[in-house]
Amino acid sequence: MQAINASIGFDRKMWRQDIRGSLAHAAMLAHVGIISTEDERAIREGLAGIAARIEAGDFPWDEGLEDIHMNIEARLTEAVGEAGKRLHTGRSRNDQVALDVRLWVRDAIDGLTGQIEDVMRALTARAEEHAATVMPGFTHLQSAQPTTFGHHMLAYVEMLSRDRGRLADARRRLNESPLGAAALCGTGFPIDRHMTAKALGFDGPTRNSLDSVASRDFAAEFLFACAMCATHLSRLAEEVVIWTNPYFGFVTLSDAYTTGSSIMPQKRNPDAAELVRGKTGRVMGALTGMLTVLKGLPLTYGKDMQEDKEGIFDAAETMTLCLAATAGMVRDMVPNAARLREAAGAGFSTATDLADWLVRELKMPFRDAHHVTGRLVAKAEAKGSDLAGLTLAEMQTVEPRITEAIFGVLTVEASVASRACYGGTAPENVRRMAAEWRERLA
Amino acid sequence: MQAINASIGFDRKMWRQDIRGSLAHAAMLAHVGIISTEDERAIREGLAGIAARIEAGDFPWDEGLEDIHMNIEARLTEAVGEAGKRLHTGRSRNDQVALDVRLWVRDAIDGLTGQIEDVMRALTARAEEHAATVMPGFTHLQSAQPTTFGHHMLAYVEMLSRDRGRLADARRRLNESPLGAAALCGTGFPIDRHMTAKALGFDGPTRNSLDSVASRDFAAEFLFACAMCATHLSRLAEEVVIWTNPYFGFVTLSDAYTTGSSIMPQKRNPDAAELVRGKTGRVMGALTGMLTVLKGLPLTYGKDMQEDKEGIFDAAETMTLCLAATAGMVRDMVPNAARLREAAGAGFSTATDLADWLVRELKMPFRDAHHVTGRLVAKAEAKGSDLAGLTLAEMQTVEPRITEAIFGVLTVEASVASRACYGGTAPENVRRMAAEWRERLA
Amino acid sequence: MQAINASIGFDRKMWRQDIRGSLAHAAMLAHVGIISTEDERAIREGLAGIAARIEAGDFPWDEGLEDIHMNIEARLTEAVGEAGKRLHTGRSRNDQVALDVRLWVRDAIDGLTGQIEDVMRALTARAEEHAATVMPGFTHLQSAQPTTFGHHMLAYVEMLSRDRGRLADARRRLNESPLGAAALCGTGFPIDRHMTAKALGFDGPTRNSLDSVASRDFAAEFLFACAMCATHLSRLAEEVVIWTNPYFGFVTLSDAYTTGSSIMPQKRNPDAAELVRGKTGRVMGALTGMLTVLKGLPLTYGKDMQEDKEGIFDAAETMTLCLAATAGMVRDMVPNAARLREAAGAGFSTATDLADWLVRELKMPFRDAHHVTGRLVAKAEAKGSDLAGLTLAEMQTVEPRITEAIFGVLTVEASVASRACYGGTAPENVRRMAAEWRERLA
Amino acid sequence: MQAINASIGFDRKMWRQDIRGSLAHAAMLAHVGIISTEDERAIREGLAGIAARIEAGDFPWDEGLEDIHMNIEARLTEAVGEAGKRLHTGRSRNDQVALDVRLWVRDAIDGLTGQIEDVMRALTARAEEHAATVMPGFTHLQSAQPTTFGHHMLAYVEMLSRDRGRLADARRRLNESPLGAAALCGTGFPIDRHMTAKALGFDGPTRNSLDSVASRDFAAEFLFACAMCATHLSRLAEEVVIWTNPYFGFVTLSDAYTTGSSIMPQKRNPDAAELVRGKTGRVMGALTGMLTVLKGLPLTYGKDMQEDKEGIFDAAETMTLCLAATAGMVRDMVPNAARLREAAGAGFSTATDLADWLVRELKMPFRDAHHVTGRLVAKAEAKGSDLAGLTLAEMQTVEPRITEAIFGVLTVEASVASRACYGGTAPENVRRMAAEWRERLA
Repeated sequence: MQAINASIGFDRKMWRQDIRGSLAHAAMLAHVGIISTEDERAIREGLAGIAARIEAGDFPWDEGLEDIHMNIEARLTEAVGEAGKRLHTGRSRNDQVALDVRLWVRDAIDGLTGQIEDVMRALTARAEEHAATVMPGFTHLQSAQPTTFGHHMLAYVEMLSRDRGRLADARRRLNESPLGAAALCGTGFPIDRHMTAKALGFDGPTRNSLDSVASRDFAAEFLFACAMCATHLSRLAEEVVIWTNPYFGFVTLSDAYTTGSSIMPQKRNPDAAELVRGKTGRVMGALTGMLTVLKGLPLTYGKDMQEDKEGIFDAAETMTLCLAATAGMVRDMVPNAARLREAAGAGFSTATDLADWLVRELKMPFRDAHHVTGRLVAKAEAKGSDLAGLTLAEMQTVEPRITEAIFGVLTVEASVASRACYGGTAPENVRRMAAEWRERLA
Repeated sequence: MQAINASIGFDRKMWRQDIRGSLAHAAMLAHVGIISTEDERAIREGLAGIAARIEAGDFPWDEGLEDIHMNIEARLTEAVGEAGKRLHTGRSRNDQVALDVRLWVRDAIDGLTGQIEDVMRALTARAEEHAATVMPGFTHLQSAQPTTFGHHMLAYVEMLSRDRGRLADARRRLNESPLGAAALCGTGFPIDRHMTAKALGFDGPTRNSLDSVASRDFAAEFLFACAMCATHLSRLAEEVVIWTNPYFGFVTLSDAYTTGSSIMPQKRNPDAAELVRGKTGRVMGALTGMLTVLKGLPLTYGKDMQEDKEGIFDAAETMTLCLAATAGMVRDMVPNAARLREAAGAGFSTATDLADWLVRELKMPFRDAHHVTGRLVAKAEAKGSDLAGLTLAEMQTVEPRITEAIFGVLTVEASVASRACYGGTAPENVRRMAAEWRERLA
Repeated sequence: MQAINASIGFDRKMWRQDIRGSLAHAAMLAHVGIISTEDERAIREGLAGIAARIEAGDFPWDEGLEDIHMNIEARLTEAVGEAGKRLHTGRSRNDQVALDVRLWVRDAIDGLTGQIEDVMRALTARAEEHAATVMPGFTHLQSAQPTTFGHHMLAYVEMLSRDRGRLADARRRLNESPLGAAALCGTGFPIDRHMTAKALGFDGPTRNSLDSVASRDFAAEFLFACAMCATHLSRLAEEVVIWTNPYFGFVTLSDAYTTGSSIMPQKRNPDAAELVRGKTGRVMGALTGMLTVLKGLPLTYGKDMQEDKEGIFDAAETMTLCLAATAGMVRDMVPNAARLREAAGAGFSTATDLADWLVRELKMPFRDAHHVTGRLVAKAEAKGSDLAGLTLAEMQTVEPRITEAIFGVLTVEASVASRACYGGTAPENVRRMAAEWRERLA
Repeated sequence: MQAINASIGFDRKMWRQDIRGSLAHAAMLAHVGIISTEDERAIREGLAGIAARIEAGDFPWDEGLEDIHMNIEARLTEAVGEAGKRLHTGRSRNDQVALDVRLWVRDAIDGLTGQIEDVMRALTARAEEHAATVMPGFTHLQSAQPTTFGHHMLAYVEMLSRDRGRLADARRRLNESPLGAAALCGTGFPIDRHMTAKALGFDGPTRNSLDSVASRDFAAEFLFACAMCATHLSRLAEEVVIWTNPYFGFVTLSDAYTTGSSIMPQKRNPDAAELVRGKTGRVMGALTGMLTVLKGLPLTYGKDMQEDKEGIFDAAETMTLCLAATAGMVRDMVPNAARLREAAGAGFSTATDLADWLVRELKMPFRDAHHVTGRLVAKAEAKGSDLAGLTLAEMQTVEPRITEAIFGVLTVEASVASRACYGGTAPENVRRMAAEWRERLA
């Protein structure tokens, strides 16, 4: 029973949050006169001593005291006597734990946000550097149109920007102090919930005490934001795995992010990328777990909710690893420009440009232009050349109105330059957008 | 292959969105001079005719045309000829489908938001009505302190308010138009993406074409918001199941939300609540499915992404049913005030109030007061009475300083009234908060 | 990179399996003449020494050596020199890790199977003890028909028996030795895979080397079997939470499985049951995670697969806790027979028996009998009595052919005794079935 | 309420199962004398008529009758009068629905098993055909050692064989008849559960009536078996996507399993493979959903359990599509042997063979041999040749004892032929194993 019940093995990770909360609570209790200023000072000094010991690694954790809260309170009372016994006035373990978890998640969000921004900066820097480095743009893992390496990098900046936004929204939504909800109904002591809320950096106190101790949607939302971000990282990781494959040869990663084998030193296994990709699973699993715990749980607190912590701890730690590895890989990878250029031109990748020329110059309806283009591609394929390898005469056997001007749209560079509509792949767009991001992330 | 490939069986649900998008695109094409105004008029009228036929149920859906987009375009071309073939200029199926799904999700969010607010209004009304109706407040499904039915209702208002907020955040985040991203790289036609974005109610166009066709995090975020809301509804549903159980007898539901059996007409199975609770599973499943689809998917479009639709369709429909059923149940249920009052007083539910009195009046440290209270409860339990059933003399054998004044805090009504800190269960708080919500939701 | 890459922090849990595998491998290498018997002896003694140090807690784990396999091999070579360097002949880390994980899962299955049987035994004992203890049988958490506590206990025996069967099937399916698959293609050394397979208790070697290092369905299957079992335990846990609720008062749990509060000593929070219920989430999460990791992974080994371990470790440990807690609660709980008897008779619970009597004795069609019963129940409800409280005359106003004999089927005892079809709730059935289980589990 | 409650929209898929169950029940009722043989004949003929109408598509489904069971029973009573009202004697909707779902899942398992075997046969045929077609064997999506296309195909045969085994185990476990459990407690009628069990192809009746109506683990187990199989198919699908990528060029798929675009006719998007890969998500989602529904559900039947059906229907249908598409792709794909041969030899893929030679011939310890090999690979890399491109003299500068014989192990063909240990990649192994599978699957 103690084995299943005790949480001290994991909830000690919240010691900073627990002490921060207790300091704010004690200061408030003294301010409104529930405890004396002497008691408050004793508590403050006692907690400082405990923090120092935990930091130093010599705090005597006691499994018998079950959780972080009782461990700290018991030591405090040992150290400062009566004052320690007064600390819990007007609060309960239920609002205390709700507070600690919120603070922990908020800190985690702040940390991960910084890391996401670091990845965004890394991607943006590569985008500026490679705004005009052409590469094949894929649909269905098949070359569809030429794009640029920079544009591709910025696609991930957009995804991560939304991930950051989700974390920010989660932070804003959870940023209300549950302290003062007490066991579940609030307290009869004349506490000042706004004061503790403010001291702890919250926008204000929660509005309903039952909800405050019963709800963990903030934890689930945090886990979803992590799972979504992990999913985005897994997509980039998959691309790194594919791009570093020798048949692709799109980018090279250094030894820092690959592992070889003693026997095949030339083999560069993209271990870091694979780990980032694989770790998506556990973050998704933590999300599934949290929602499952909450499903069908009557109000208010049930011991099931003790299961909120390990999932968020593990997800946060996993995200920290994955974001650091991703930032490193993005900075590390060297695109092989020559190979990318060659690949970008293969596969009749400018067929769309040809079709668009037919529409624009010959006023052909779009669907008809597509049909004509298909025939030209087939002709080139039969000839074993690319589209620019067809002579004008050959083209005119398919569509007599085609002119010499068409050759102007068949190069990879012309293709990417032409896609200058807002958000398009044109290098000038990429440069402008990357500069915007650089400034926003500065 | 056609069986696995065709999506017309389900994506026809997006016909309104598809036509809306095409109308905006055609108007823009005409505005910038890519097509003529005559063509635009023909397209407009053709699409209006198609819309009318779909609405009337006599549109000839063709499995062979695979999806909603080709079905409509083919009929349009049939109806208006050349103009129909020009409609697709400067766009591609990839941005078209990305647009349609976004519009569909946005519409779904708007619909569900209205329904959530309806449930919130229903809960708020019950809260005002029962601001002072005492009931037991539970932790661990055991009575812990008296609360009020109104306070309990408002706890769910808070949860749903955050659910609404998540949908609003998801809406804001997705509210960028992907139209113009074309196949993946943007287009060389001088389209005006800001114009179509504005016409379709978007805040602006997306900033990166690759991201526009490759990302479906908006769908996953929508599904998470639904799953979270469903989880909250499942908690209320669980409570309804428990409360309507005869041993609890806390509330009664009418025949509209229960089913009996021909043989046991008095049995009132809370079928609606059970269904709401059970349906949480499928919404969570849709979320799991969507994240799994996206995990490790290289950019940009892959056919895997066709799997985005059925999950969101089913989740949205499920939420519509669950929210409607919940709103109905909340309005329908009749709290049994006498039973709730009796239950609220049982189980020494005012023990905390007694302990707080000891702290407040006798300046006893909190932990010591708890200890004394425990002894008084044990004494009452031994006597077979509740706390107020102990004589002053009996109390004083445990703690001589206790005075007659203590009996003032032992009633259920005194207990709830005293918890007047912000967010606490005091009826005056509940009334004020309910009134605030009523106004905000007006 | 080392932080994300290193697995020694968790895979050291497999040290016994790793050493067991190496011993079998070395013995085989010597047997077929690939290494000398002297080398084999050195390896054996070296590994014994390492095992002793790990057991004693003074093995010098080295993060730099990344995983359990390299840690052990490095120390071995340190200890026994050249021989240690020969141990890895004809195997690779890929088949080694595949082997270790299989062995670990197999051991976990054996341990959990024993625990499941312990819970089954506990349930069976309670079933024999309470074969005739009547209680209400619920549908929709509402009394439907009388059943017995013993029958209810045996329902869980059936569920757990299937859970045990799933683990047994998973064990049988995984019980093939991957050792000898080497990196992925097998080896050119004349190893004897059947010998190592036999030595390690496998039914034989795997049939395909690529599959051997690439597959982890055995891990996913184990996790599903755990998740399913956890779900069953969560149902029993939910019932314990409900049954111990004072309004139900069906069973009492001792202090060993509940926690009170210093202030409300009479409150018995069913913490153990809530934890068992809540922990279902994390096991489901581990399953989701594992399937997600494997989804879309090309053959053969990818570093993603390193993510197989922590999920199974955590799930196995969680199941150990949950099964132990459940066994304890089942043995601990005291059914309140008087309360169960009273509840079993309430709610017109013998209405079905009455209807069946009408069908049997009066040859009334089933649906008509249901209709008549409904009217009789309504009459009793109006009178404020139970069915047996109606007079014969009153009954005959609804159906004149009813005779005095009907009163014989209206008692709770008659009801349960009559349901004597195979698998039915009759005490004689319960006794017989419990005895069968007792013998099978002996 | 009707919208959320009615299941007739989806449970009509079980009409065959429902009628089959009713026929068996009626025959038994007549056999034991509960109904007359005339009634039984009337019921039999009535149900035959209903089956014919449903088959013909002109059965008048009535939403108001809520589910498949009431729809059929109501029509039956309409058609045959009194006899129809007697059909339900000794059973209840609870055991009826439990029966129907079991029968449906059993039928689905049988269908999917046949399809899995079809895929296995297709893979086996390709394996025999390509037992000696060398290709690169990957770890980390990087060439590690040469293998053969046939060996790779057989790896999937192994996975699917286990998937088939899981379905078989699930079938065996569920193959007990719940009929006769009635509402939850069994029935007082002298029914013969063994008779109906036998008639319906079950191994016997279930042993506990409460469990019979309360449990759905068979549905969850079915969903897991599907999800696991889908995951395996997703791995093959991922490989098809990668292999058909032009840079790999490993295999070619025909137009039947790819889609081009009107504009890029040479582009062959592997849509079928992508869909198979993507659909893994929804099957995993159905599994998550089912477990979530069951989590924490008290016995016996709750309306939540109505949510069991749509998930299994959708998963079964999805698997049918995915298996059919996979079988087709496996049969359709044409390996490009020349390209595979070339790729198999690249990347120093026989380095392990060289190391093994050093161990075998020079008695070098394995770890030392690896070190020497690494130096030889580095030398070759520097020279720009493969390993066989080094002269003996060059090799001897690294390790003087190397002899001419070493060149015998450096070819791709020698490498695969040498890995002849059981389960290894040697063509003779592949041929033998493929032949075994062919016979087993005949």
